[in-house]
Amino acid sequence: MTTEPSTIEFRFDFGSNYSYLSVMRIEHAAREKGVPIMWKAFLLGQIFRTLALENSPFVLQKEKGAYVWRDMERQCCKFGLRWQQPSAFPRVGVLPSRVALLGAVQCWIGAFCRRVMERNFVLDQDINQADRLAPILTELGLSAGEILDQAQAEPTKKRLREQTEEARSRGIFGAPTFLVGTEMFWSNDRLDDALLFASEQIIESSLSQARQ
Amino acid sequence: MTTEPSTIEFRFDFGSNYSYLSVMRIEHAAREKGVPIMWKAFLLGQIFRTLALENSPFVLQKEKGAYVWRDMERQCCKFGLRWQQPSAFPRVGVLPSRVALLGAVQCWIGAFCRRVMERNFVLDQDINQADRLAPILTELGLSAGEILDQAQAEPTKKRLREQTEEARSRGIFGAPTFLVGTEMFWSNDRLDDALLFASEQIIESSLSQARQ
Repeated sequence: MTTEPSTIEFRFDFGSNYSYLSVMRIEHAAREKGVPIMWKAFLLGQIFRTLALENSPFVLQKEKGAYVWRDMERQCCKFGLRWQQPSAFPRVGVLPSRVALLGAVQCWIGAFCRRVMERNFVLDQDINQADRLAPILTELGLSAGEILDQAQAEPTKKRLREQTEEARSRGIFGAPTFLVGTEMFWSNDRLDDALLFASEQIIESSLSQARQ
Repeated sequence: MTTEPSTIEFRFDFGSNYSYLSVMRIEHAAREKGVPIMWKAFLLGQIFRTLALENSPFVLQKEKGAYVWRDMERQCCKFGLRWQQPSAFPRVGVLPSRVALLGAVQCWIGAFCRRVMERNFVLDQDINQADRLAPILTELGLSAGEILDQAQAEPTKKRLREQTEEARSRGIFGAPTFLVGTEMFWSNDRLDDALLFASEQIIESSLSQARQ
């Protein structure tokens, strides 16, 4: 199931540090290029397990892990983002992913995801508890109780499992990943390339419609 | 053993596809920023083995491997480089690494490395045979026979083993890697960041000398 190559499907995991960078950057960057975003949280840990990886490569490989934290400091400095290395990594983000699923096409999705990410990567807080997420939803003017109830109901749980399985079936092996039609772009380092590609598709499609 | 943070130590492997991108780009990019390059080939396979990896992650992980070849097509398009997926991957580049060690501070080092990389990633040819490298050296106006003899002599072999071991001891786990003083930057995606950092060090050092 691929979408039109005129949107960017943004596949991210709330525990993934490089997803943090893209969550903070994508709305502004996509608006500049006129590209609509489809927000699709998924659980990277589940995919790692199907790839026979027992944890994040940043945890399994000591050298790469040490590098990644230094790289994150520099990248956050470059993008003007705050940063604190989480004392728990990777943090489980099942509950915020379920909320993000419910809010995927709501105007609050970007703000919600950014606030959850800041809890994890700036404030070093747990992000998987309802009482941590409720204040975020309330701040956004939403009915926290209702949304969190719905997030924890079986149909939402099932949809998140399906969204993760769909990511796996599309060949996704890391986060963030951007899908533009059938083209896959992996890592925050490819966000700009993915947006440029999507905006080119939009222009081509407009030209081809104008010719008809 | 770290060098002054006013040069960029370029650690690359002739079999590594992302090293291909950096080998093709670095001389032009470094000249623009006024940063001298130290060319340091090493054998990534040896480091993978000390990390208990039996091969490149692009070979071991099917999903990542499939992605990488598409990513390379797009990256080469972006940087204006030719590209053909090698029929053997990763190719062994021991002999060209030994030549690169001998030529590290010679004016022909950049041109030599680019031509070897093009043999691997554009012409899909073996790069580890003396009769493949001789024409490259001859084209560059060099004494191919002399250089290849010296490349295959024990002292050169020993120096390449040492250069690889030194890369490992510095925490290098992939290629290309750029070292600027004690700062490590991994992947072609960080080449510009590494050069910017080095050029800032050069400016700071000049200012501090001017103040004395």
